[in-house]
Amino acid sequence: MSSIFSIEHTITNGYARSGLLKTPHGDIPTPVFMPVGTLATVKALSTPELIDDGATIILGNAYHLMQRPGVDVIARAGGLHSFMNWDRAILTDSGGFQVYSLAQLQTLDDDGLTFASHIDGARHRLTPEGAVELQYQLGTDIIMCLDDCASYPADQARIIESVKRTTQWGQRCMQRMHELRALDNRGQLLFGIIQGGVYPHERIASLEQLSEIGFDGLAVGGLSVGEPLDEMYPILELLAPRLPNMMPHYFMGLGTPVELLEAVRYGIDMFDCVLPTRNARNGQALTSSGVISIKQAQYKYSQEPLDAECDCDTCTHYTRSYIRHLYLSNEILSARLLSRHNIFFLLSLMRRARAAICTDEYDSFVKTFTEKYRGN
Amino acid sequence: MSSIFSIEHTITNGYARSGLLKTPHGDIPTPVFMPVGTLATVKALSTPELIDDGATIILGNAYHLMQRPGVDVIARAGGLHSFMNWDRAILTDSGGFQVYSLAQLQTLDDDGLTFASHIDGARHRLTPEGAVELQYQLGTDIIMCLDDCASYPADQARIIESVKRTTQWGQRCMQRMHELRALDNRGQLLFGIIQGGVYPHERIASLEQLSEIGFDGLAVGGLSVGEPLDEMYPILELLAPRLPNMMPHYFMGLGTPVELLEAVRYGIDMFDCVLPTRNARNGQALTSSGVISIKQAQYKYSQEPLDAECDCDTCTHYTRSYIRHLYLSNEILSARLLSRHNIFFLLSLMRRARAAICTDEYDSFVKTFTEKYRGN
Repeated sequence: MSSIFSIEHTITNGYARSGLLKTPHGDIPTPVFMPVGTLATVKALSTPELIDDGATIILGNAYHLMQRPGVDVIARAGGLHSFMNWDRAILTDSGGFQVYSLAQLQTLDDDGLTFASHIDGARHRLTPEGAVELQYQLGTDIIMCLDDCASYPADQARIIESVKRTTQWGQRCMQRMHELRALDNRGQLLFGIIQGGVYPHERIASLEQLSEIGFDGLAVGGLSVGEPLDEMYPILELLAPRLPNMMPHYFMGLGTPVELLEAVRYGIDMFDCVLPTRNARNGQALTSSGVISIKQAQYKYSQEPLDAECDCDTCTHYTRSYIRHLYLSNEILSARLLSRHNIFFLLSLMRRARAAICTDEYDSFVKTFTEKYRGN
Repeated sequence: MSSIFSIEHTITNGYARSGLLKTPHGDIPTPVFMPVGTLATVKALSTPELIDDGATIILGNAYHLMQRPGVDVIARAGGLHSFMNWDRAILTDSGGFQVYSLAQLQTLDDDGLTFASHIDGARHRLTPEGAVELQYQLGTDIIMCLDDCASYPADQARIIESVKRTTQWGQRCMQRMHELRALDNRGQLLFGIIQGGVYPHERIASLEQLSEIGFDGLAVGGLSVGEPLDEMYPILELLAPRLPNMMPHYFMGLGTPVELLEAVRYGIDMFDCVLPTRNARNGQALTSSGVISIKQAQYKYSQEPLDAECDCDTCTHYTRSYIRHLYLSNEILSARLLSRHNIFFLLSLMRRARAAICTDEYDSFVKTFTEKYRGN
């Protein structure tokens, strides 16, 4: 078991826990939301703003960064941290999911993935070893294994194949990580990714196989990819008692505020999602009373902040009326103010979740939040 | 003459002067560059950033604001300052220039301007009195008269007409301003706008007529509208000795760094221009060695800041390589970082010009700057 992760408190009669994850760029209290900075920038925000708002770790994406600006450009800057002026932790996704969802002409074999860039059509090759090397070169704190992420829906045969390949690739990633650490151990962590779709037997098989490889953490992949919530939650329920306790658990690509809180119930510690920034650019704000669309005529004269319960910079200084005007006028400041609020909202939500876990009041916290959020 | 403006120092053998302009929202050291915040936002920037970078006054635009979001929306917020979270000074343009350059179906008569919005085609009417009332309602610190701004080129008959009408409108603006001040004097200033195109006789006539009205300041309008520099500078040279000394002189819509410094020679105190923010969104940076286009391949690996001589936040924290990547990836942060640098560059240029005036070294300052900027 890894000493990089310590559990502070686990709630009575449940799996939700608060913890601390140590990385080369700082300690991360969990549960934690990681803002997505796909292309070496959390869209519309600056890194000092993220620090002011309490972000401790952000996510980058190896698939995108290998194409733009290219790993050579980032390496020349001394790595992703100095390239983008961010000295806290970074987790990078390997690119497996993006190849399936974005790239063209992708071909999959047991040795890796070949694809044509969605930007310029250029051919690229990702192997398990190559994905680890790429992220090692980027200097990220948490490296994700290359996985074989089946699209949803997938038949059982495809899922069995993806689990088998993900395990094999996971072993190869770990082998390469060992070699790189022997050359120069920078303390970078390596996480495996559990596949298995919505098939219970395959999920358990994937978890058990990956648990033997010695990863620093385990992620749940291949969920929140289009399946209904009543297929997603049972898988989390299945995994919760079986996830190795003393390592961080990361649910990739989740989600809405209520989904995050529900996943925390199943012992999930880490989250990332483009939702807060993407929705911000579409004029949507997360609030304690649910999502609002700022373009609505009802906000034309509103002197209220986006969320009266929020302490973020946007809510402290700007009204719905002003932000609505900016959004309708297509002003960049609209994306800035809404992104900053939405990111703060999820960072703050995880901080409050953590506090509720520590005092063993998590269930009532979730109940109160969810009822208000859903307008019940 | 107005006590709102005091001259600190005028250079020996020239017109360049440093001064201090008092407004209801703070004192403004001059010469000064006013960042343009057309739609109640300096594009891509936040107001705390503008304050950090030393902006003391920004410009808004009545023509745009009356359409989006509408004066009623801004009035409901308590005025433009509180609407946009900016507690320093604001100057608003009356909209005359925008009607000529942007609006459709504009018709001009001696009583005012009728036009169809470039946004939604809605019909609007601007009269001298209406333009003052509009800006009074916005709560801006410096109100600009409605003027009759002839397009370039214009024949002499049209220019004679525009000068005559601008004087008549100026008188009506002042009359309305007196009435509003009698109701509730908020200390707002009223500036007249000198017209006359590139016709010396008409320029002098306009200046002399407006000088009798009792404005708090005078602006030079109808220049930097497409005429060559060798027609523009002679007009400034003509006006310089004739401008009332003890009031601020504002050159509307200028310009490039060298043009600003040249205009200061002719006793100009105030400037505004969309150039720094518009060029920023097009990937251009002002530097002490001239303008650079960040997309160029030569900057792909550049670990240099935009301008090695610049102390702005962008130059302190980010490389050309990173900003180039952001620009090519169409990331919002590109517009932010470049806009912040370009605005800082002009704010700083005016601060340095002021310091050089105070020590009577203005000519050598301009010579040194211009030679380096032009790569001589």
